[in-house]
Amino acid sequence: MEYTHSLEFKVRDYECDLQGVVNNAVYQNYLEHARHELLLARGIDFAALSRAGIDLVVVRAELDYRQSLGSGDRFVVRSRIEQVSRVRFEFRQDIYRLPDERLMLSARITGTSLNARGRPQVPAELAALFDEA
Amino acid sequence: MEYTHSLEFKVRDYECDLQGVVNNAVYQNYLEHARHELLLARGIDFAALSRAGIDLVVVRAELDYRQSLGSGDRFVVRSRIEQVSRVRFEFRQDIYRLPDERLMLSARITGTSLNARGRPQVPAELAALFDEA
Amino acid sequence: MEYTHSLEFKVRDYECDLQGVVNNAVYQNYLEHARHELLLARGIDFAALSRAGIDLVVVRAELDYRQSLGSGDRFVVRSRIEQVSRVRFEFRQDIYRLPDERLMLSARITGTSLNARGRPQVPAELAALFDEA
Amino acid sequence: MEYTHSLEFKVRDYECDLQGVVNNAVYQNYLEHARHELLLARGIDFAALSRAGIDLVVVRAELDYRQSLGSGDRFVVRSRIEQVSRVRFEFRQDIYRLPDERLMLSARITGTSLNARGRPQVPAELAALFDEA
Repeated sequence: MEYTHSLEFKVRDYECDLQGVVNNAVYQNYLEHARHELLLARGIDFAALSRAGIDLVVVRAELDYRQSLGSGDRFVVRSRIEQVSRVRFEFRQDIYRLPDERLMLSARITGTSLNARGRPQVPAELAALFDEA
Repeated sequence: MEYTHSLEFKVRDYECDLQGVVNNAVYQNYLEHARHELLLARGIDFAALSRAGIDLVVVRAELDYRQSLGSGDRFVVRSRIEQVSRVRFEFRQDIYRLPDERLMLSARITGTSLNARGRPQVPAELAALFDEA
Repeated sequence: MEYTHSLEFKVRDYECDLQGVVNNAVYQNYLEHARHELLLARGIDFAALSRAGIDLVVVRAELDYRQSLGSGDRFVVRSRIEQVSRVRFEFRQDIYRLPDERLMLSARITGTSLNARGRPQVPAELAALFDEA
Repeated sequence: MEYTHSLEFKVRDYECDLQGVVNNAVYQNYLEHARHELLLARGIDFAALSRAGIDLVVVRAELDYRQSLGSGDRFVVRSRIEQVSRVRFEFRQDIYRLPDERLMLSARITGTSLNARGRPQVPAELAALFDEA
């Protein structure tokens, strides 16, 4: 797969649970942060949009957990985004451990954009992102 | 769907993010807690198993986010578990807001059980759970 | 000490870290939720205030960790609030494990109330709470 | 104050709560990660120690919240450690926003080291750290 964004992390000990590995829910934190950084690199600021009444929201998440990250592990989240309908977009995101590049998790996250009345409304910045693609 | 377990929660404000609603990753916390309580009610203690070298792990999660929970919302996680192969089991979990019973999230969580060498090994308690079903 | 509010919890496994006990930061989550419930019982809604431009904020936290909570533990957070200056209030909060009533943590949390310009401003509901005391 | 360790972070949106700023408890996450990295730089691996039956634990935390970090903020946690008794050590940790170097939070975290029987026991690596100081 061709990724358009890549972000490095290091596991923090508080992210590990009593099994001694990163808790399942924490991967969604990693993926969210990577998505927001991808968007920011394209001029789309999640927090600013929210203050302006436009909320980018996740409508579906599919996560395949392949191997567990543990204390001290470095890893990279590689992502790309594509438009799947007029008001829906999909992120493909994979997590690779570093430096061995082992695939740890694969995810497919579908999102949309809602205005203050809860109706789908794609902000100009986001529409432009797909137009250029 | 026929659920075999039900657990009530109330949203805690720290679980809400800057959009003012429960953060996406937090739903996985809710679902995990409900699964562990379901298992405990059947005599399967996730933490005790882990100390004994058996780790119950999630291999796939599918989550459909339908509506957002917000500050002060009460809700119930309803779950059931079924065996999908000799070493895999699947939880179906739905979150309903209370008291209006509106469906907020539907999830399908596939898990397995690994021994200390990372090999699938179903503990007797878990096997018994499916035998009785 | 005389508490005016009490809230029961059960440890959730995702709150435990790789030492197998509740992570230090999570106690602040418990304490915050107990404070918000105490306030709500007196008619003060943290989230509604925030939407109205008044933010209740913590300015100092002192936490004495005495014993560790672990998987499956039930506990109660007992709290009281008192005014320490015109614009500052202090929560005294203690966590006791159940059913043995062992003291696990003692905390003293100092807060204030800020308006949209970041200036101390005590909302009427909060002032009334102290007037009645 | 003279710091001996410094670690840069960037706020992640999921760390912000419904007030739109980093939640109080999350600062303890930042501080913990910075402490573990400080220790690691001196050859002390928190997770490995825990697996070997030695748990580094926090016994007291004092946090002064001065200003709030928000979405997108970069910051640095600067720390130093000193021995305060035969079995206790204290971290002084301050958080500065970048690039303006504004002080956001000051903390004093007291810790000890417990063996598998819950008795204070300072591992050789930690004792050496103070001997060299």
